[in-house]
Amino acid sequence: MRIVIALGGNALLKRGEAPDAATQIANVEVACAALAPLAEEHEIVITHGNGPQVGVLALESANDPNLTRPYPFDTLGAETQGMIGYWMLQSLQNNLPGRHVAAIINQTLVLAGDPAFDNPTKFVGQVYHEAAAKQLAAERGWVMKPDGPYWRRVVGSPKPQRVLETRLIRTLLDSGAVVVCAGGGGIPVIRNAEGHREGVEAVVDKDLTAAVLAEHLEADFLMILTDVEAVIDGYGTDDATPIPRATPTQLREKGFPAGSMGPKVEAVCRFVELTGDTAAIGRLEDAADIVYGRAGTVVTPGGNYGGPNDIPIPQRRDERVARK
Amino acid sequence: MRIVIALGGNALLKRGEAPDAATQIANVEVACAALAPLAEEHEIVITHGNGPQVGVLALESANDPNLTRPYPFDTLGAETQGMIGYWMLQSLQNNLPGRHVAAIINQTLVLAGDPAFDNPTKFVGQVYHEAAAKQLAAERGWVMKPDGPYWRRVVGSPKPQRVLETRLIRTLLDSGAVVVCAGGGGIPVIRNAEGHREGVEAVVDKDLTAAVLAEHLEADFLMILTDVEAVIDGYGTDDATPIPRATPTQLREKGFPAGSMGPKVEAVCRFVELTGDTAAIGRLEDAADIVYGRAGTVVTPGGNYGGPNDIPIPQRRDERVARK
Repeated sequence: MRIVIALGGNALLKRGEAPDAATQIANVEVACAALAPLAEEHEIVITHGNGPQVGVLALESANDPNLTRPYPFDTLGAETQGMIGYWMLQSLQNNLPGRHVAAIINQTLVLAGDPAFDNPTKFVGQVYHEAAAKQLAAERGWVMKPDGPYWRRVVGSPKPQRVLETRLIRTLLDSGAVVVCAGGGGIPVIRNAEGHREGVEAVVDKDLTAAVLAEHLEADFLMILTDVEAVIDGYGTDDATPIPRATPTQLREKGFPAGSMGPKVEAVCRFVELTGDTAAIGRLEDAADIVYGRAGTVVTPGGNYGGPNDIPIPQRRDERVARK
Repeated sequence: MRIVIALGGNALLKRGEAPDAATQIANVEVACAALAPLAEEHEIVITHGNGPQVGVLALESANDPNLTRPYPFDTLGAETQGMIGYWMLQSLQNNLPGRHVAAIINQTLVLAGDPAFDNPTKFVGQVYHEAAAKQLAAERGWVMKPDGPYWRRVVGSPKPQRVLETRLIRTLLDSGAVVVCAGGGGIPVIRNAEGHREGVEAVVDKDLTAAVLAEHLEADFLMILTDVEAVIDGYGTDDATPIPRATPTQLREKGFPAGSMGPKVEAVCRFVELTGDTAAIGRLEDAADIVYGRAGTVVTPGGNYGGPNDIPIPQRRDERVARK
């Protein structure tokens, strides 16, 4: 199978941890050890988040007295692709002796006219007091919004249209490589008035990018890995229950919060609806089990999926339809 | 022809310029516009330096109060591969519509027993007063040496043995892509006692890495681009003369300073001696002319090279031997 895996940035830097390189490298090693068994049997493409990491670099850049202006988020995102890409490259190579691994820099095309630019909602970077925030807004044209007692910059989170280097990713996969790509949802770029690609100050949702990438790579399976065991029905109530199987419609009907589970549910539903293939949400440690239907929430067009006692590998589409 | 190009980090951030992203992006655009014509006719692989860029990030990391320790140089180098790789990726795509471009993260294998680790000579990062330098040396095990009136950290500059992802670079080239790789000489890694790859605090000379990469990719031409028009005989004297053609032996006999032209001369001589192919040193703006023998210092086994009025494309090896 061809599997696209989206790994949360929080898996690489946990809440409360100092953002030291050594800490993150240790976390990357845990993540790669969990993913390596999948690569033994499948073609895998790994994308990763970069929320905490880009926050660290943005703050360092904002505080750098040698700069006239802090680095923009497209450049900072590229730095995190290099850094996290390197850590994962090395760890995957060490976990998969003899296997080739590629870590590449990717841009994600977004539309200049995406309504998200007019209604930025994604908080990025450091917090400011109201007065400083308003001054920055005036000086730099940033949009600032209250975030609790402080103010923070908000940028748009436009919809990913395409990972621009998809053909190269396919070439690398076809050559037998494990591919690490589209980190942080990919560096957001628009096509400008001259028809050129140009970076924009935006943050693309990494799970939605993974869904687009999985679709364009004709992946068989999209796996979104996070720190919860499954999508939970009635989360936070006494009746909270993990959902082992669902159709996109069943999942969409439940409604999930925009900031956390919402984009993940949207990503898996979109992929399954557009392709008829399989997607799942679950825990990083359970990655190998999720593929075989033993963990996580598995989403298919019919809401069924063969586990190890049923069918050891995912059903082909005709079998899946026949079983409905 | 397959051409490996090494571009100086100073081409992307000139002395005296504030290290803003916008400044560097503008410089990258000039560089890529100069290189794009070569890509129209040849397979090209571009490596780049990162000296000024890694210095900026190292200083930011050293001043980050949220970190227990500043990021090590392998991680910082990886950040610059992401950042510069992104800028070059985007600019090359804009300059070469319809052409695929790949920017990838690379490690360069060095030997754990390289004598350069016992005699570190490469200055990195910020300057300190003597007392602070000695405290850092005691606390962190860094080697500190005087650099003018201040002290600075020195790291080893071990010899590059192999760009670890050479096969992937070849795969990408064979697919028709322009490849940006091995930035900053590649992230230096050793094979540790457990046989695993592990990053080291070192700086690999980017020109030597480019020579090793060119050799392993069976490149026809290694081009080292800098800000001088050619290798100069009698540099700084009244008799200073650019050298248009040379054999490796002729060039080595002249002797060049270790800090500047020395490694470039060593890189081109090594490549020509080991492969019998062609190498050159010259100015970025002259890149397209250098290939045709109209600019720069061109080094071949016989010290001859066909210019546009002689042979419009470089001679094959058998012709070169016949002409000697």
